[in-house]
Order: sequence, then structure tokens, then C-alpha cells
Amino acid sequence: MKRQEYKISFEPTGRQVYALPDTILLEAAAQAGLILQTPCGGAGKCGKCRLKVVSGACPPSANCRPALGETEVAQGYRLACQARIQGDLVVEVPVTSLFESQQQILVQAADLPPGSARALSPGRSASAEPGRPGEMELCPAISKHFVELDMPSQADARSDVERLRTAIRPTDFDPVGIRLLRLLPGLLRRQGFRGTAVIVDGDLVDFEPGDTTSQCYGIAVDVGTTTLVGTLINLKTGLDMGVEAKINPQTSYGDDVIARIRKCREDAKGLAQLQRVIIGAVNEIVDELVRAAGIDRAHIYEIVMAGNTTMQQIVCGIDPSALGELPFVPVFTDAPHLNAADLALEINPCGKVFIFPQIGGFVGGDTVAGIVASRLDRETETVLFVDIGTNGEIVLAHKGQMIATSVAAGPAFEGARISCGMRATSGAIEKVVMDGDLRMNVIGNTRPAGLCGSGLIDTVAELLRLGILDPTGRLRTPDEVPSTTALALRKRLIEQEGHVDFLLAHKTETVSGKPLLLTQRDVREMQLANAAISAGISILLEMEGLKPMDLSRVLLAGAFGNFIRRNHARRIGLLPPIPCDRIRFIGNASSLGAKRALLSVAEKQAAAAIARAVRHVDLSLSPDFQTAFSSAMLFPEDDPGKGCEG
Amino acid sequence: MKRQEYKISFEPTGRQVYALPDTILLEAAAQAGLILQTPCGGAGKCGKCRLKVVSGACPPSANCRPALGETEVAQGYRLACQARIQGDLVVEVPVTSLFESQQQILVQAADLPPGSARALSPGRSASAEPGRPGEMELCPAISKHFVELDMPSQADARSDVERLRTAIRPTDFDPVGIRLLRLLPGLLRRQGFRGTAVIVDGDLVDFEPGDTTSQCYGIAVDVGTTTLVGTLINLKTGLDMGVEAKINPQTSYGDDVIARIRKCREDAKGLAQLQRVIIGAVNEIVDELVRAAGIDRAHIYEIVMAGNTTMQQIVCGIDPSALGELPFVPVFTDAPHLNAADLALEINPCGKVFIFPQIGGFVGGDTVAGIVASRLDRETETVLFVDIGTNGEIVLAHKGQMIATSVAAGPAFEGARISCGMRATSGAIEKVVMDGDLRMNVIGNTRPAGLCGSGLIDTVAELLRLGILDPTGRLRTPDEVPSTTALALRKRLIEQEGHVDFLLAHKTETVSGKPLLLTQRDVREMQLANAAISAGISILLEMEGLKPMDLSRVLLAGAFGNFIRRNHARRIGLLPPIPCDRIRFIGNASSLGAKRALLSVAEKQAAAAIARAVRHVDLSLSPDFQTAFSSAMLFPEDDPGKGCEG
Repeated sequence: MKRQEYKISFEPTGRQVYALPDTILLEAAAQAGLILQTPCGGAGKCGKCRLKVVSGACPPSANCRPALGETEVAQGYRLACQARIQGDLVVEVPVTSLFESQQQILVQAADLPPGSARALSPGRSASAEPGRPGEMELCPAISKHFVELDMPSQADARSDVERLRTAIRPTDFDPVGIRLLRLLPGLLRRQGFRGTAVIVDGDLVDFEPGDTTSQCYGIAVDVGTTTLVGTLINLKTGLDMGVEAKINPQTSYGDDVIARIRKCREDAKGLAQLQRVIIGAVNEIVDELVRAAGIDRAHIYEIVMAGNTTMQQIVCGIDPSALGELPFVPVFTDAPHLNAADLALEINPCGKVFIFPQIGGFVGGDTVAGIVASRLDRETETVLFVDIGTNGEIVLAHKGQMIATSVAAGPAFEGARISCGMRATSGAIEKVVMDGDLRMNVIGNTRPAGLCGSGLIDTVAELLRLGILDPTGRLRTPDEVPSTTALALRKRLIEQEGHVDFLLAHKTETVSGKPLLLTQRDVREMQLANAAISAGISILLEMEGLKPMDLSRVLLAGAFGNFIRRNHARRIGLLPPIPCDRIRFIGNASSLGAKRALLSVAEKQAAAAIARAVRHVDLSLSPDFQTAFSSAMLFPEDDPGKGCEG
Repeated sequence: MKRQEYKISFEPTGRQVYALPDTILLEAAAQAGLILQTPCGGAGKCGKCRLKVVSGACPPSANCRPALGETEVAQGYRLACQARIQGDLVVEVPVTSLFESQQQILVQAADLPPGSARALSPGRSASAEPGRPGEMELCPAISKHFVELDMPSQADARSDVERLRTAIRPTDFDPVGIRLLRLLPGLLRRQGFRGTAVIVDGDLVDFEPGDTTSQCYGIAVDVGTTTLVGTLINLKTGLDMGVEAKINPQTSYGDDVIARIRKCREDAKGLAQLQRVIIGAVNEIVDELVRAAGIDRAHIYEIVMAGNTTMQQIVCGIDPSALGELPFVPVFTDAPHLNAADLALEINPCGKVFIFPQIGGFVGGDTVAGIVASRLDRETETVLFVDIGTNGEIVLAHKGQMIATSVAAGPAFEGARISCGMRATSGAIEKVVMDGDLRMNVIGNTRPAGLCGSGLIDTVAELLRLGILDPTGRLRTPDEVPSTTALALRKRLIEQEGHVDFLLAHKTETVSGKPLLLTQRDVREMQLANAAISAGISILLEMEGLKPMDLSRVLLAGAFGNFIRRNHARRIGLLPPIPCDRIRFIGNASSLGAKRALLSVAEKQAAAAIARAVRHVDLSLSPDFQTAFSSAMLFPEDDPGKGCEG
């Protein structure tokens, strides 16, 4: 195994990643968690992804001068979608080059003082360029108001509530709930009528001692079937404070939604168990976020959750049994209003929980959140949104309408059901290139511990390209592979018990001291996931009478890794045969949508409208889907979009 | 004691009362709980109080023919405000003669089938004459909808909530609370998607098996310092189902609000104790109403409560301590939204509790309810509203503005602090006439057991008239009384230990076998209550630069008895010296207002507007009030409105 990697440092965050030679800069940035803007699809035309190379060698690509102009090129600016890494680099990322929902990452890392020009502030746009689609006002459901009230007197004997209400105008609140009403007279008098009123979603929930207006946080949680991702957000500045991910502990009861539903149907205590473990995991995420950020959990006032219908119902403690049989009916589609106490979430006891509205069947809040994040609802062109997860969701926007479906992809792309599979965390092989031998990129630049989704796609695509894997998904024996196959690769084919496995890393190279193998069975698992997504896309296109080339763009979302190579995704048939520049990677869209809802009540309203507007398509009984699935189980004979590199 | 009484039966209720000769029919009706309309103040001019004498002798009064016309007089119609009782009577009460809020009493008693012309029904006016001030739409916060839903199918896989939401259109509900959301899938499927959706105040709270739409009840509770009155209402028809009254058990901790507040301030468990006993008493009232009406308490979905600020805060479990010291600050003025479970009220566990909004200081929800009931907020003339209770409230409407104050009257008019005092229930002496000897009317036509508020006022007024009581409130000795005093009355004066008591009933005449006495001390207690109300009225009039004769009307409310003689109330100085025809008795206005709020959400909105509009006047530190109070401790020398009989 040849490992020659370069270190790329990104300013102002200071994040560092290691990348293989010839990796494009856009990809290295994504690996560092920085999703760049690519409205032209990475064709090197729009110049939106420009980065400034501060140190290290990075010659300008052919498109660089036409897109950026001589002056910028001279200053070190490069097109991230075109520039290939040839050595260690230090790169500066302009805020305007980031994908809109991500811009705060930079602001935070730069540790700007509050109120600085680049920090978000209430009523100000997050974007430097007004009118851009990603622009949003910072308008969370929580507001805090420090007040020093006039003391009651004979001339002013207003009630406690009225005194407070008048003081925080023009903000208002609903009739005060009985819990706080009982506490309020004592709080006001003990604090000398001085303190911070906390209003959450129109409810006055607390009157804290002193001025705590700067301590106002929320958490956005992407509730995946396999993975939970929580992001702590400062609701005063709009900035990310930290991210924590965890395996959904429900996986021990089965790794897809069907298994979880079965548990609820067959075991009287199943629902309670599943709910308890997932709430426990979310509380662990809260613990870790609180500890890392050094904040008080009482200052977290809202949790926004987005997941598929099964996950959302289980989180809420609502029996998902009806999702386990035809016609797959969810209990709710509009967003329920919950208190943190209803779910035993360990934030402020009067905090709120917003669960995303749902579309229907298995298409739940995560898809709505993804549409919010990608602005698919405002799309005028024909655009496909694909969220790859254990439950794969596909939305087609065409002529101002949206149709959506879900497919049971299984957790292969999230690293589960794959013998050496793992999440895209430190130690995961996230990129594989086969060039004489196998070169790999490992997250954290450590020894490899396993294979994550993007590494899996790379490996399979490369094996297909080299003819080591045949289109049926069978790993060929050393005797069967093309004669051009490099010896080093040929040696990686290990025949045992009538089938062949592929050696990714020798036992001397790994963390565990055991070899890492891509087994024939792993390939079969991956084929199932691949075929499910692929068939879902085909059917939606067919329903609208569209061909792949009618798609202006494909938005690729998923929590399965930092980045997947678009040409590889297309090579294995996961994505339709269209030019790579029409394929956009938009990161964990569900998580981004949840963050947006936390940052603005307008986004929650948008989510409600989206949930009502999208038409749900149930493919479960569709014979067309069965046919499409069967044919998608075969990999394409050749790369359907050859010549277009991403 | 001479007791010659006539039996008066009222149709269609069948209610019977016993009345002394010469009692006016209006008064006998009030004693039967039937408050008649008297827009002309009982001057015999408007004809609104007309009743039909079905059997018995009742010659027409002088005003009868001009007001009612020859035909009606020939048919037996009489003016209730003029006709004097001279023998047993059976009288029919037309719906239109009843005080607006009372009209349902008749409808109920007549046991009309639902939908009959005289029964209230949703969207129909309670009044036969559209446009009258008392008119209201039946529009409670609760609605029930029986639905037979389409079963889910592949063609119609809407969520459970959406299925239900669409079925009950145009009624809608808020996002479903987590409790019902967890129950709903099971309820729907167990009941075969058939049942009754219950919506309370916009919240879907239940999906009951079968069609229960006709079982929909609420309870209006007048939460007095001394007395609790609960009325069960059928929210489908608007009809009363029963009334239960109880002594407020908090009286064992002190008989006025100051004593209750002191208990909360001085005893850490005081508030919890006071709340527990009053909630216990309300639950007993609920029990009795449920038992008497033979209904299921799960079908009671709302309790509306009206009380003064101290009572309302204690009921809610909110510390009233700040009401115990200057500047007497209540915790809330706008109506809090509560669930029955918050207060451990034993109705439907998802039922709601509406607590009336408050004005300020001690002027609470009972006054707002009284204004709702009397429509004082729509008044264009100068009108005084006086609610006589342990906490006396006075509201002056003048030039479209309202000012309000409260006075600590003490519980004398409710029968407490009076040696033989009792509530206006069976056995209470409710009317006293001194005419050679003492004649009395006892509620239930039983032997006397005690003296209620109206009997107390009668007794004192008569003793004053005859010179047996001097204007300072001292009972004269047999030697000091005027020489014209009848021997029988003179014999009732019992000298002991330097003071004189007045014998109301000899021990042989009473229930207990003990004599009933009005003691000198009882008169002093009554003077305090009387002077407090009287002084409060004087000050409000002074503040607006008004004289008593500027008052177009005085609305007299109170739970202290069925009826008080207006001339007697005026004689003792309780009411200002104005002609009796300007004094209107409006019954337990607080209870009526609470019933209205139960029957219509519009009345709740009106209550909120009233609470904001009324200006609160704090008399506690007013030297003018102290002066007015001192002079009101002296009874008027002579009847200030002599010649005007009510």
C-alpha cells in the first residue's frame, strides 16, 4: 500500500486534512467539513468556489484565468473545483465561497467579536450578497430580554405579568403557563424585579437572575436510522458551537426501520425501549456538546429534530406499527409541539422540541429538512434531490411541483452491514484510488480502521473500472481479471471457499492488526443499496415522463461521508448518467435544514408548507419498481458519463 | 310570631315558594330563582316583567292596563313588579319576561326536546327578540364531531391526524398534543376509525368511541370568599343542568381575604392547604352535580371560574402574598390557560380551566364576570354596579369609561359573623316585615334555622323605621323605644349585660329549639359591611363629580340571598338615596358571567377587553374613604327615598 499524502490547512478555521495527490481542492475542503458553492456544478465556470492559496504550490488550471481574472490569479486565488493537489498547501477560504448554510463555520473559527461585520446578528442577513437563495434572517423561536422593572407602587400597582409584558415590548408573549405563574412572584421579588425574561415560541418560560441574554442556545439533531448528528448553535449569533455524532443505539434492535417497527409490533415494551435508548443517545450528544462548549445546559431552550417518519414517531414515543403494514400510514404529518420534558431531553426543562413536519409513508422530516436546506421548493428547473441513508429519499422537482418517495437502501453507505464498514470518522478509509496499486485517504491521517460510504463507492467503482469486479457484482478470481491488471492489485484478490474477497489493507497496516477486506458479501450488500436508490430515481423520472438528461441538477445529500466522487457514484449506477457538473453535493442536508429551522421561525413555516405541498409516491407495490430494482442490481457495463471528471 | 303565607307555583318550572301577603310577585319569583326583566326599574311602565296568572286571585294593578292592554289583562297577564300577593297562585312565566341570562331555566324545566323552538341551539340566539342586549350565540370552547372515517388504503394513505382533520372540516384544531398523539393510532384502529373527536379550545383532546356528541358539559363556578356556587351546563343546548352551592372551606382559616393571605404569608404550607381545601370543595360540587344530573364526569370538558384576585390566585396555587401588603399587586390580570389536571379538578383529564381575567388590586374575575353578565361595558348612561359579598366590588360606568374599586365588607351579608347568620338556603329567614308583630318568610317554608343577608337587611331596616334601633346602631331598651311601639315587638327586646338583643324567633318556633336572636354585636358587624359598601360608592361618585341622582341605574349583584328589598337596602344606607325604580337586582352576576363565558368564546374575549378597560381605584390609603366610612357607620336618620316602594 502506497501512502503519499499532502497536508492541506484551511484558514481561518485552522482545519487540516490529508489528501492524495491529484485530489481536487473542492474535495479536500469537503473532507475538512467545508462545503463550497458550486452553482456551475464544478465546471470551472462560475468562479464561486474560489479559494486563495496562501502557501504551497498550486498552479492555476486552464479555466482559472477566464473565470477569476488575471489580478485574482496573481493574488493566489484558484478554482477549488479545478485545482489539483500536488503538495502541502495553506488555503484561505472566503466566506462567500462557502455553501450558504455553512458560512457561519468560518465566522466562528475566526473568533470574531460579537457584532463584527461578518458575524450574524438578529435582523441581519447571513449572506454578504443580499438576495441570494441561501440568505436568511436570524429569527429563532427564542428571545431573551434583560429588564430592570419599576418597583410596584401605589401609583403603579400593575400585576407582575403586566409589568413584565410592558417592559419587553414590542415582543409579547402568550398567557403565562401555570408553572411559571406560580414561580413568577417569588422570582421577581427575590431578584429585585431585575433579570432576563426568556420567551420560547411565544411562551414566557423563565425569569433568570441577571443579564443572561448572551447565553441562548439550541441543538439541531439529524435523527438517522443509523446515525445521530447533533449540532449546538448559538442562537444569538447564529454560529455553530460544535457537532457530535453517534451511532443510533436502536441499531442493536435491527439496522433498518422495518426491524424497528417489528420490535414495536411484537414486543409490548418495544416502543418504550427504542424510545429510551434513542433519547438516551440524544442526551449523551447534549452532554458532550455542553461539555465541549463549556455552557450551561439550562441555556439550551430548543431542540429541532429531523428524521424519517419511523424515527420521528419513535423519538416522540408514538407507536409506528401502522408504518409496518400496508398502506404505511404515519400518525402525523404536521409538526407536533412538544416540551423538552415530554421527551425527557436534558436541556432547559421548559425548553421546546420541534419535530419536523412529514410528507407521508416513510418520507419524513429529514426530507422536509433537506428541501428546506436545498431550497428545492423554490426551484423552477427540473431538479432531483437524493438523500442517501439507510432510508433513502428521493424528491423530484419539476414544473414547480414536487414528488417524493423513499426506498429501503439499508445502512451499507453508512458503514453498517459491511464487514469492515464504519462511520466517516477518524480511521475511516474515505477515498480509494487504484493506480498500479491501491492508494487511500484515511480520515485523521491515521492507520485505517475501516471503510466508510465514500470509500466503499470508490473501491467498487475502481474495481469495476479495472474489470476486477464484473457487472453482476462478482469479484473475479486472479485468473479471470483482465491481463492488464497490475500485479499489486491482483495480489489483493483472496480466494476462499468458492468466492473472492479484496484486501484493502494488510494486517500490518491497520489499527487493529487485522486485515481489512471488501468481501463478496459486502459487494452484494452495497448492490442492494445502490439498486434501491437507482430504481427509485428511475421510477420518479418515468412518472413525470423525463429522461436523465432532462435533469438540470441532481442534489446529493447524505450523512454517509464528507464527500463522494460524483463520477464514481455515477459509475456504479447510484446516480443517473448525466454530466458530473450537474451533480451537486450538498452535505448533510437534513442537519442543515434542522439548523435553519432552529435559526428562523420562517424556516419552520416553510417546512410546514413543504410538507403539505410534496406529493408522496408509494413504490412498495409498484411492479415497475420491482423491474427497475432488478435491472439496477447489475452495474453499468461502462461509465455512462465517461469523460466528465468531478 | 304570626305566619300566614301563600303558596305561589311557577310554571313551567313547577317551582314553589311561600310568600307573605302583599309581597310583590317579582320578589316571589326571585325567591324561586326566577329573575325577571325590569328595564323600567319596576315602575310598572315597560311591561317586560309580565306573568300570566293561571289560577288564584290577583287583581290587576293600576298600571296593568296601560302597560299590557285590555286583551292581555283579560287573559290573566299581570305586571310582576306591581302585583301583590293576596292568596295562593299558579303563575306562568313567559321566557321573554326572564332576565336574559336566566331564560334557559324555563326551557330546561319544560323539558323540551332538543331543537325545539325555545331551546338554545348553536348559532341561534338565546333570545326571542333579536338585538336585545342579553342576546348571545351558543359558541362554547368545546365542540364534538362524530365521524366515520375512510379506512386507510394505498390510494389514501394520509396520516391519522390529517384523516381526522379533513373529516371534521370546517372545524380545525391546533397541532395535536403529545399525549393524544401517542393514544390516537390505537384509538382509531380499536374503534374501526369511527368515533367522536373532542376539540377543547382548539386542542383535539380525545377520540371517544361511538357518537357522544350529545354529551358535552361544562361547569361555571363562582368562587366567593365565603360561598362557592357551581352550575352544570349542557353545552350542546345551553341549558342549566343543576346548581350546587357550598361554604368555601377556607373560611375555617379566616373569613376574609386578608386572613387567607396572612395564612399564606405566615405558614409555608398555607397556600398548599388553602388550595387543597378549595379544590376539594369544587370537586365535591362536581360530584354532586354529576350525580344529580346522572352524567359521566368524563363528558365535562371545561370549568370556568370567577372569583376575586385572592381567591383566583389561591385556586391556581399562586402565592397571593403580594396582595397582603401595599401596593396590593396581583400576579396576573390576563386569563391564564390551565388544564383540569393542573388543578386536580376531577372532570375529563384533558378538560380546560378558564380563570377570569382580573382588573387589579382585589378587583378580580368575579367583577369582570359581573360586568359581562350585566353588559355594563356597553353602557352609555351613568350606571353603578355593586356586587355585595365578603369582598364588595363597585364599578361606576360613566361616559363610556369604567372605574372599579373593592371594599372589605366582611361576610355579614352572607350570613357569617352574625350570631344566627346562615346562607340563603332552606330554613333561612329571608324576609322580615314588622307590622304589629314580626312576620317572616323562611326559605322552604320550614321552621326558621337562622338569618340570611336579605333577612338581616329587612330586620335592621324595619327596626330603624320603628325607632327600635337608633341611627348609631344601638338597639334601644324597651323603655327607650317610641311609645307607639307594639307590645309584641317591645317584648322581643331582651336586655342582658348592659345591651339589648332582639328576639327573632322563640325557641319553640325554631328548628334547633334554641331562640334566634339579632344581637347588638350582629348589628355592629352589619354596620361595618354596610358602611364599607356605602363609602366605596360615595368615593367613586365623588371622583367623577357625580351626585347619587346622576345615576341612571344601580345594578345590585350578590350571592347573599335571592332578593333584597330595595327600599330596605336604601333605608340602611347600603345603596345611595335614589328612587327604587333605578335600582335593579341582577342576581349572582359573577355566576351568570361565568356561565356566559362557558357558553361562548366571544364572552371570554369580551372579558379580556373589560379587564383591560376598567381603571382600578385603590381606596386603601385614601383619607376621603376613611371619612366616608366613618360617616357611613351612622344609619340615615330617615329613609332617604321615602315614598318609593320596591
